[in-house]
Amino acid sequence: RVDGGRLWGSLMAMAEIGPGLAGGNNRQALTDADREGRLLFQRWCEEAGMVVGVDAMGSMFARREGTEADALPILIGSHLDTQPTGGKYDGVLGVLAALEVVRTLNDLGIRTRRPVEVVNWTNEEGSRFPPAMIASGVYAGVHTLDWAYDRTDAAGLRFGDELERIGFKGAEPVGQRKGHAYFELHIEQGPILEEEGVDIGIVTHGQGLRWVEVTLTGRAAHTGTTPMDRRLNASLGAARIIDRIETITRAHGPNAVGAVGQLVFAPNSRNILPGTVVFTADLRHPDLVALNSMAEQVKQAAREVAADLGIGVAIEEVGAFDPTAFDEDLLAGLRGAAERLGYSHRDMVSGAGHDACWVAKTMPSAMIFCPCVDGLSHNEAEEITPEWAGAGTDVLLQAVLQAAEV
Amino acid sequence: RVDGGRLWGSLMAMAEIGPGLAGGNNRQALTDADREGRLLFQRWCEEAGMVVGVDAMGSMFARREGTEADALPILIGSHLDTQPTGGKYDGVLGVLAALEVVRTLNDLGIRTRRPVEVVNWTNEEGSRFPPAMIASGVYAGVHTLDWAYDRTDAAGLRFGDELERIGFKGAEPVGQRKGHAYFELHIEQGPILEEEGVDIGIVTHGQGLRWVEVTLTGRAAHTGTTPMDRRLNASLGAARIIDRIETITRAHGPNAVGAVGQLVFAPNSRNILPGTVVFTADLRHPDLVALNSMAEQVKQAAREVAADLGIGVAIEEVGAFDPTAFDEDLLAGLRGAAERLGYSHRDMVSGAGHDACWVAKTMPSAMIFCPCVDGLSHNEAEEITPEWAGAGTDVLLQAVLQAAEV
Ligand SMILES: NC(=O)NCCC(=O)O
Ligand SMILES: NC(=O)NCCC(=O)O
Repeated sequence: RVDGGRLWGSLMAMAEIGPGLAGGNNRQALTDADREGRLLFQRWCEEAGMVVGVDAMGSMFARREGTEADALPILIGSHLDTQPTGGKYDGVLGVLAALEVVRTLNDLGIRTRRPVEVVNWTNEEGSRFPPAMIASGVYAGVHTLDWAYDRTDAAGLRFGDELERIGFKGAEPVGQRKGHAYFELHIEQGPILEEEGVDIGIVTHGQGLRWVEVTLTGRAAHTGTTPMDRRLNASLGAARIIDRIETITRAHGPNAVGAVGQLVFAPNSRNILPGTVVFTADLRHPDLVALNSMAEQVKQAAREVAADLGIGVAIEEVGAFDPTAFDEDLLAGLRGAAERLGYSHRDMVSGAGHDACWVAKTMPSAMIFCPCVDGLSHNEAEEITPEWAGAGTDVLLQAVLQAAEV
Repeated sequence: RVDGGRLWGSLMAMAEIGPGLAGGNNRQALTDADREGRLLFQRWCEEAGMVVGVDAMGSMFARREGTEADALPILIGSHLDTQPTGGKYDGVLGVLAALEVVRTLNDLGIRTRRPVEVVNWTNEEGSRFPPAMIASGVYAGVHTLDWAYDRTDAAGLRFGDELERIGFKGAEPVGQRKGHAYFELHIEQGPILEEEGVDIGIVTHGQGLRWVEVTLTGRAAHTGTTPMDRRLNASLGAARIIDRIETITRAHGPNAVGAVGQLVFAPNSRNILPGTVVFTADLRHPDLVALNSMAEQVKQAAREVAADLGIGVAIEEVGAFDPTAFDEDLLAGLRGAAERLGYSHRDMVSGAGHDACWVAKTMPSAMIFCPCVDGLSHNEAEEITPEWAGAGTDVLLQAVLQAAEV
């Protein structure tokens, strides 16, 4: 078993970097805080005897050699970047648990046949630079490197420039490091495990996502002097589309979720009808057909509402991943490990996207969930217990022992 | 008659200061651009032989002496500040037309019995620091000076500090300068005059306004993992309230207008349900009873929607003025002046708030409108013709000659 206290200490030390305003973290991708977090992680990896490589997307691979140097490695990891108002565990747990696995192997003097690589994927959250999971996406060949470099944040800064600025534009070609299997431990970010008192979630599937960005073009005009029937009212348009998103989501069954978390008015003045309103619908479903239906209906609703109000509409998908099934054999191994360790477990579907969803395109992959308090995530109040983290990491250790072949 | 070409030249020169991105202006109150515009105006006033005083709210009073030094002056003016994406004429025309009136009096060697004061009221727009017309409001005793100083912009900067920073926190007590009458020329900001081909609007009334700021408190949570029935969804709440604002406005007759021009999500990330959404409903009606009914119904709707979704709601009125009637005698004088000059005219109600609405509480006041292209204002594309501006300024000159007594 792993050293849960040491793992917890590392989590708390990482949380010191890029503190939020309410006990959580603001360590968004490619910021100075991200850089500082990466440097701390690198130092820890080197102290654990690993050699750290960085690819051209900034993803970090800390390698512990196996007895057979040429054998494909076992990759384990997640991400260190956070939401602007993020928690201390989302992603971070998966990276530091992977480090803890290596530390434990070191403590026990265990040598594995296959190398083990601890991975920190760049910009998983996608909140500064959409889409989410962009670096694992390039790794899996879903996006090109140049396209990723050209993504911009709200201030217009380029991903490629910011990556270079923080000193993590690595020399390694992306996707060069192949793997035999990939495991990712993550907090559930939902309420099920805690409510049912289950220790371990075995993630059989990840649901799919569509980020539908809608740009409404109204006419900036005086709110007091412009007659109601002469308005090209983009704020009313946005309101009606958001209400339709709710209706469309509810009509796609109990597994559908949909909402708008990001929206910007311009010029955003109390006495100007907005000239433009831009917002993104976040639509998810575990079933691909249903997911595509939701996205189509939302686009259609946006066009209808805009036509009705006489305003312009442009629609762009700024993020998308399909539902993913994880590897049956690895899942069976995880269930067995949980049982051997005496942890209760259940199968579940991930509501969030994870780097594992893209990595699964390139090698057998699987995910382990541990509970989080009240299912709350993407909130600074996100919380877990050391016991939950330790249990999940114990399962990860067993998975590595099995897959890396002792 | 005034020198329309000189007036136009001044308008174009002022428009060079704080240029917008699309041919208009961004010269918001108490910015460096505002300061630069004020200094140019001050220089022009001094070149025209006036002495410029500044009050503790930063309002500027450029005085041309009369033959009777103790007689109450005639005040004429408007504002030089603009919306973030404002036009070149909204407010500016009224100030520079007043200056043109004085220049014309000088050219013709006309001495008036009463002094004439050209006024630039601070922060009429209210888009950086709500409420609108704040300085004329303090002048009229509607707000206290301390309250005004404590208003903050979106970055948290205080009105009082910014006023001091740009060097326009004057020594004169606010309201010290009394007046015999106040005239304000302004662009209509609506479509009526242009559509009807009428030269001059005689503004009999200003409609009332309520700015109802609504703060919705949801729960910041993951858009993918939080089940639909566990969401405290503030973005959905805002959407539904905005839709209700439209319905409530439509139910208050053809003279009611209502919309939302300003709205902010926090943390504003695509995969976080907003923790808070803040927006302001801009509600207007020429009838006080109807106006108050609209505001009450919007507040009630906000409470209902919030209760229905289980989210928190806080409501604050961040701006308010009641419908105003302008002075009958002055209005009769303006109609006569337009007729003598051969300009067509019609009575009308102002859809926007104006400094004249507050000044009317302290002295007989009246307003003159000139047309603007397509009724468009609070938009960088706002446009007028030199002829329209000249005609309005001619009427203003006649009003001053009459009221200041030649
Ligand atoms: N795990 C996680 O929160 N990933 C961010 C991408 C998403 O919104 O699902
Ligand atoms: N004239 C004008 O646009 N004033 C700003 C205050 C308002 O929104 O009515």
